[in-house]
Amino acid sequence: MEASGHFPQHVIARKRDGHALTREEIGEFVRGATDGSWADYQLSAMLMAIFLRGMTAPETAHFTEAMMRSGFVADLSNVRQPRADKHSTGGVGDKVSLHLAPMVAACGVAVPMISGRGLGHTGGTLDKLESIPGFKVNLSFEEYRAQVERIGLCLIGQTRELAPADKKLYALRDVTGTVECVPLICASILSKKLAEGTQVLVGDVKFGRGAFMKEKARACELARTLVNVATAMGTPMRAVLTSMDQPLGRAIGHSLEVAESIDCLKGNGPADTMEVTYALGAHMLVLAGTAKTEADARAQLERSIASGAARQKFRDLIAAQGGIPAVVDDPSRLPRAKIERVVRAAHGGFVNDVDPMQIALAVLELGGGRPNADARIDHAVGIAQLMKVGEPVEAGAPLCVIHANDARTANAAVTTVANAIVVTVEKPPATELIGEVIGG
Amino acid sequence: MEASGHFPQHVIARKRDGHALTREEIGEFVRGATDGSWADYQLSAMLMAIFLRGMTAPETAHFTEAMMRSGFVADLSNVRQPRADKHSTGGVGDKVSLHLAPMVAACGVAVPMISGRGLGHTGGTLDKLESIPGFKVNLSFEEYRAQVERIGLCLIGQTRELAPADKKLYALRDVTGTVECVPLICASILSKKLAEGTQVLVGDVKFGRGAFMKEKARACELARTLVNVATAMGTPMRAVLTSMDQPLGRAIGHSLEVAESIDCLKGNGPADTMEVTYALGAHMLVLAGTAKTEADARAQLERSIASGAARQKFRDLIAAQGGIPAVVDDPSRLPRAKIERVVRAAHGGFVNDVDPMQIALAVLELGGGRPNADARIDHAVGIAQLMKVGEPVEAGAPLCVIHANDARTANAAVTTVANAIVVTVEKPPATELIGEVIGG
Repeated sequence: MEASGHFPQHVIARKRDGHALTREEIGEFVRGATDGSWADYQLSAMLMAIFLRGMTAPETAHFTEAMMRSGFVADLSNVRQPRADKHSTGGVGDKVSLHLAPMVAACGVAVPMISGRGLGHTGGTLDKLESIPGFKVNLSFEEYRAQVERIGLCLIGQTRELAPADKKLYALRDVTGTVECVPLICASILSKKLAEGTQVLVGDVKFGRGAFMKEKARACELARTLVNVATAMGTPMRAVLTSMDQPLGRAIGHSLEVAESIDCLKGNGPADTMEVTYALGAHMLVLAGTAKTEADARAQLERSIASGAARQKFRDLIAAQGGIPAVVDDPSRLPRAKIERVVRAAHGGFVNDVDPMQIALAVLELGGGRPNADARIDHAVGIAQLMKVGEPVEAGAPLCVIHANDARTANAAVTTVANAIVVTVEKPPATELIGEVIGG
Repeated sequence: MEASGHFPQHVIARKRDGHALTREEIGEFVRGATDGSWADYQLSAMLMAIFLRGMTAPETAHFTEAMMRSGFVADLSNVRQPRADKHSTGGVGDKVSLHLAPMVAACGVAVPMISGRGLGHTGGTLDKLESIPGFKVNLSFEEYRAQVERIGLCLIGQTRELAPADKKLYALRDVTGTVECVPLICASILSKKLAEGTQVLVGDVKFGRGAFMKEKARACELARTLVNVATAMGTPMRAVLTSMDQPLGRAIGHSLEVAESIDCLKGNGPADTMEVTYALGAHMLVLAGTAKTEADARAQLERSIASGAARQKFRDLIAAQGGIPAVVDDPSRLPRAKIERVVRAAHGGFVNDVDPMQIALAVLELGGGRPNADARIDHAVGIAQLMKVGEPVEAGAPLCVIHANDARTANAAVTTVANAIVVTVEKPPATELIGEVIGG
């Protein structure tokens, strides 16, 4: 007696029972998310069914495409240069986009980048950029299009027109326990990235304690899915697996990370951050066709720093989006916290561990994280001069400097950070920072 | 960085990952459904996770108890007689409650019965009772309590105070593809039945094409779960598996079924209907302690018909709830459709099959079913004098009579019914009507 045709509950029941959904059924689900013809409780039941039953490769591709086409798909054919973008699955201290985008743009490859905000333990590129006084991340699509054409570089947030189905489903996933699911993550990432107008894409898929995918095998599965779906949709993609077992770089917190990115553009970046930056940037240039080999690409990227061209591109970006470009030459113009507290080693030895989740918790305690989507953040606070795993340290020497805006949160962060950093007598074995490249 | 404590999404994620929920977590879920502190989309994500991950026996018991305690739990200690009730999982032509309740009450066992409405292919006891002119099913709890004390019998609908969490979750399950799930069904049935004030319970768990559980093994699983949970909660229960592979009795449709129930009370009921009625009634009397054996119980039930006591109890029930008791002696006072159309056998032989879903579809076409929860129904229409599987039929002889209120729906029903009834030359083998008894 069930009515035939596609009532939401019938499509949900098909996925619930483990069937592969047709392109048409997936289209109805995504349309339901976009126009409200599926109720939120039907969307979330479907998300849970997808979480537990999975999606085949064709389903994931159809889902991603339907999500992308739920909104505006940018036409950047006005841009003369080839266009490349990168996406990171997010971690602690990952400020790579901030300096990598100007480096790649300085090498003649346009970077049309739509980024997100931080949530939970991860920081977001948009939040970091907003710590630059005046910087605007909410441009219209026409402004975005014109800026990419003019300076080969634009970093903005998800507009209302871009993948509205993803906006709806992402918000639901966050509150229904359906976040960590490869096909859902894939469609969420690619629906936005493929709609922004890039021609090629490089993924930084993180694994380890500070990543969303703790296990490398799961990160690898996500990377393969992303590469397969993007490629099938006509966007060549590579994904690099990188470790997030300690924070990336020595700075965590918005303006502190911008300052560290400026260091990178000056050739003074931390070794781990630059290693990830060069790996991702090299794949961007090779995929975009402006470098024959990764070595050639890396040489171009190094020249963009040595020549000052990347730094100039960053100034151009800041100026184009309403910020004060002088921060590049004088980072003290970035917001600065009132209190600095040095955390010191209780005994000498080697840094054995820096737990990224604890470090993120400390930044959250300082007011520099976003416990929920509506929370306001303090751009000035965070952790700087953080020692890296494997580095020697003497008793009483600094392990990091905490930047706080009040004594209470400073004290809390000192305690948290002191627990996060483990110093041992023996030097720990070196660990892998950059893993497999998928789609290479 | 996830906040500790029990955000809905954390409880959902535990079930999603296959863990058994604690009594406390289940309590939060049910409280969330009752007071709205869980959003509908969180409730439905949890329902899907339960559907796909299942629940252990202790989880199901905790869930059922929390659902029951989400509202008012009736105290019927004012009633002197022992109290018994039965619950059917629903089928086509199942009017057993209508005459069984007065029969049991006539045997000195009070029947406090809270029933439901029909939905989809199943009819509902409340809808059938409402075809009796004036009959009211919405009594207050005080009226219900007083009536059970006074006449040993009351049949009403779920009040607002009774298991509100079930009311919420049941509505969500219907539109999110999470209906056919043993722990969810168990908690839904028992939360209401154990809150209504019965002391013992008999389940009629149907299997076959016209049942919600098509497979006997699944029906058996539901029956065992119901019996185990009810017993653990202090309510002795038995469940009888009965076949729903053809409609029960010869009448389908609201007033037509009331008329057939009156036939049953007069000793003229169809054999299959009476077989199910006696089986269920016997277990009710034995569990209630007023009969030593099933044979003794059956003899009591037969006497309740022969003496006219059951018929009088039905008159008392109708009078107490505002209806016209004279329908018992003159069923022509029930609503009657304008058109009668006889469906005749194209050729002679034996009735080989009567598809209950097709018969239900015909009644729905006639306006006698409820395609959705808000639909209005026509009490007068339906199918009567339906031939039973195994009965001989001559070419041109009636297979059933269709009662319709307009020619268009009458024609549609004739076609549907003609396809539903299969006549063959050979007599089909006899099939099982009553299967295992669980908890006996």
